[in-house]
Amino acid sequence: MTRFEPNLRIPGPTSLPPSVREAGGRQMINHRGPEFAAMLGRIQTGMRPYFGTQSEIAVLSCAGTGGLEAAVVNVLSPGDRVLGVSIGAFGDRFAKIAEVYGAAVDRVSAEWGHAARPDEVRERLRGGDYRAVLLTHNETSTGVMNPIPDLAAAIHQESPETLILVDSVSALGAVPFEMDGWGTDVVVTGSQKAWMAAPGLAMVAASERAWAAMEIAQMPRFYLDLRRHRESARSGETPWTPAIAVIYQVDEGLRLMAAEGAENVFARHEACAAATRAGLEGLGFELFADAANRSTTVTAAWIPDGVDWKAFNGEVKRRGVVLAGGQGKLAGKVFRVGHLGSVTVDEILGAIATLETVSVTAGRPVEVGAAVAAAQRAAIEAGIARVPVAAGA
Amino acid sequence: MTRFEPNLRIPGPTSLPPSVREAGGRQMINHRGPEFAAMLGRIQTGMRPYFGTQSEIAVLSCAGTGGLEAAVVNVLSPGDRVLGVSIGAFGDRFAKIAEVYGAAVDRVSAEWGHAARPDEVRERLRGGDYRAVLLTHNETSTGVMNPIPDLAAAIHQESPETLILVDSVSALGAVPFEMDGWGTDVVVTGSQKAWMAAPGLAMVAASERAWAAMEIAQMPRFYLDLRRHRESARSGETPWTPAIAVIYQVDEGLRLMAAEGAENVFARHEACAAATRAGLEGLGFELFADAANRSTTVTAAWIPDGVDWKAFNGEVKRRGVVLAGGQGKLAGKVFRVGHLGSVTVDEILGAIATLETVSVTAGRPVEVGAAVAAAQRAAIEAGIARVPVAAGA
Repeated sequence: MTRFEPNLRIPGPTSLPPSVREAGGRQMINHRGPEFAAMLGRIQTGMRPYFGTQSEIAVLSCAGTGGLEAAVVNVLSPGDRVLGVSIGAFGDRFAKIAEVYGAAVDRVSAEWGHAARPDEVRERLRGGDYRAVLLTHNETSTGVMNPIPDLAAAIHQESPETLILVDSVSALGAVPFEMDGWGTDVVVTGSQKAWMAAPGLAMVAASERAWAAMEIAQMPRFYLDLRRHRESARSGETPWTPAIAVIYQVDEGLRLMAAEGAENVFARHEACAAATRAGLEGLGFELFADAANRSTTVTAAWIPDGVDWKAFNGEVKRRGVVLAGGQGKLAGKVFRVGHLGSVTVDEILGAIATLETVSVTAGRPVEVGAAVAAAQRAAIEAGIARVPVAAGA
Repeated sequence: MTRFEPNLRIPGPTSLPPSVREAGGRQMINHRGPEFAAMLGRIQTGMRPYFGTQSEIAVLSCAGTGGLEAAVVNVLSPGDRVLGVSIGAFGDRFAKIAEVYGAAVDRVSAEWGHAARPDEVRERLRGGDYRAVLLTHNETSTGVMNPIPDLAAAIHQESPETLILVDSVSALGAVPFEMDGWGTDVVVTGSQKAWMAAPGLAMVAASERAWAAMEIAQMPRFYLDLRRHRESARSGETPWTPAIAVIYQVDEGLRLMAAEGAENVFARHEACAAATRAGLEGLGFELFADAANRSTTVTAAWIPDGVDWKAFNGEVKRRGVVLAGGQGKLAGKVFRVGHLGSVTVDEILGAIATLETVSVTAGRPVEVGAAVAAAQRAAIEAGIARVPVAAGA
């Protein structure tokens, strides 16, 4: 079966809705003019409820990794003790950035596939005089979502002065977040994830405590200096020429999300996640992540013994479904299915159906139709039928 | 007169040709797949002749300022002596970045409106044991283009071990450059300038000497680490998720430039620059830059005494021509006209005509039609009639 537009099931970049694509093709404007200022303002205001903050949000022209670097270098000084809580490749990266800039980083590493444990984090903080803890909200490499409120509460209890920096690149916008309510200090997300836009922007919010920390932080920074962004934002600008085409797209993505309603966005993601898990399990794929902390935005599954993954995935791709491979030490061991951004249950069912078709061809023991049915049941059980259809999208 | 698409005469972002706009609206793809690898390879290969280098070119997802930061932090160490040759706001910025990262920066500053003098740079280097010199190719704030080959020759003569880092953000692609031939070590450009794409990418090439310097450079770097980019480029990837929509656009912009031919691209820019200068002078605006070193991509002119610039420029803008104001200490004193990227002589004549119309309305003493005629004569004298029309554009 020829598929005329790929079913892009990687955990970002995600497929762009038609109006977002159109926005990416708009003509350039003066980034020091009133149209740009209005757009930047809409993005900052529109994202605030998703961050769950009253604080300012900086829009940086860089990848999510640049956003993580901004989180580190703006609030820390060389020599600061930092606890890097890592549950996978992106947690390792976050800790590595702090190390590169001279922080004294200790690590708590969960076995990959598991979430971080609040009690273990609390234990490690004891008497340690840590300036900051680095947390990954959604670990894209393993498909595990960390319990940020529980982790933040444990950190506050043990070490109330410690700053909490959160990589929510691949989660924010797809699941609820309460930056102010949970007491987290710097939160980072990326345009190509839940926001339904192309890559190129990182959005970074900082608490009052974090803004104060920036005044004494000694790590060098210029391009990613959040104070310069705050200063420029006062006149509706960014300090450096911004990635305007991606800003157009995030602006339009936020409009679509507002038309759908945040609660419905979250419910759609939950249903797609449930359908993905049920579908993959129905096909005999064992999920990688601990059942208690599976991600709402990406699912990782073991490549079964005996499956020639290169051939299998090649056929899946030829049929128009683009999956992600394993990252870091999971390369060749797991595959990943992204379900975030513009994702619908229909697309997930389509992906499961294609995996089923290829499984049949490859002689894997699957009952035809069963996985698709299981995925659909899971979506219905997750309440997708009750999620209203957006009128203004 | 209503103008249905603004005549965007700022020195970047520049107007996007239709096919570049279309490219910006394309659907996302896997940035770890073969389509992306092919596109990245095309960009690296296609830009090489414009850089005039056989070295590798890194494609960074950031503004030009991020590219300048990459140039500094990849080859220098804290404490290194650096000579910042500044002829305006962007030269000051380049030097500031080096300072922020701990270099011991000395400055040679030309009077704004003038180019750097090779003899002065040579004099300052004498006995100074400088690790690097920072040069601005085209100073966007003043409309001055530095004589890079002469400056590079002077530096080589006086201090052959000193690295030469060049900000060519707003020049490369619009004028000839010979990175290898002139012996410059790191050269930076930005997608929203000559390349006819949206902002969001900085392209950075490094000489063999610069790549070697990266092995001992001690300034901290992660997101902008060029070694990680070189490593990923071997498999047709970028280390972090790239700004795919802008990469689509640069790829298409390069295709248009190849269809036009580099020599014709350069000739078009020369003709547009000549027309702009003649047109503005015909309107009685005094050009800011020293006549010997006027920029091929941006022209700055004094705001005449007695002109209410806010009202004048408001009317110009209302008629669809978007000019840039002055930067830094020139704010309120000069205005700037960009003529780079997709610019044509027709657009320059249109801008001059609009400035003429508004001048007449404002009671400025202009002879109707004279400035437009002068601009057209300058374009013809610059050879625009002999520049062939691209067949494949």
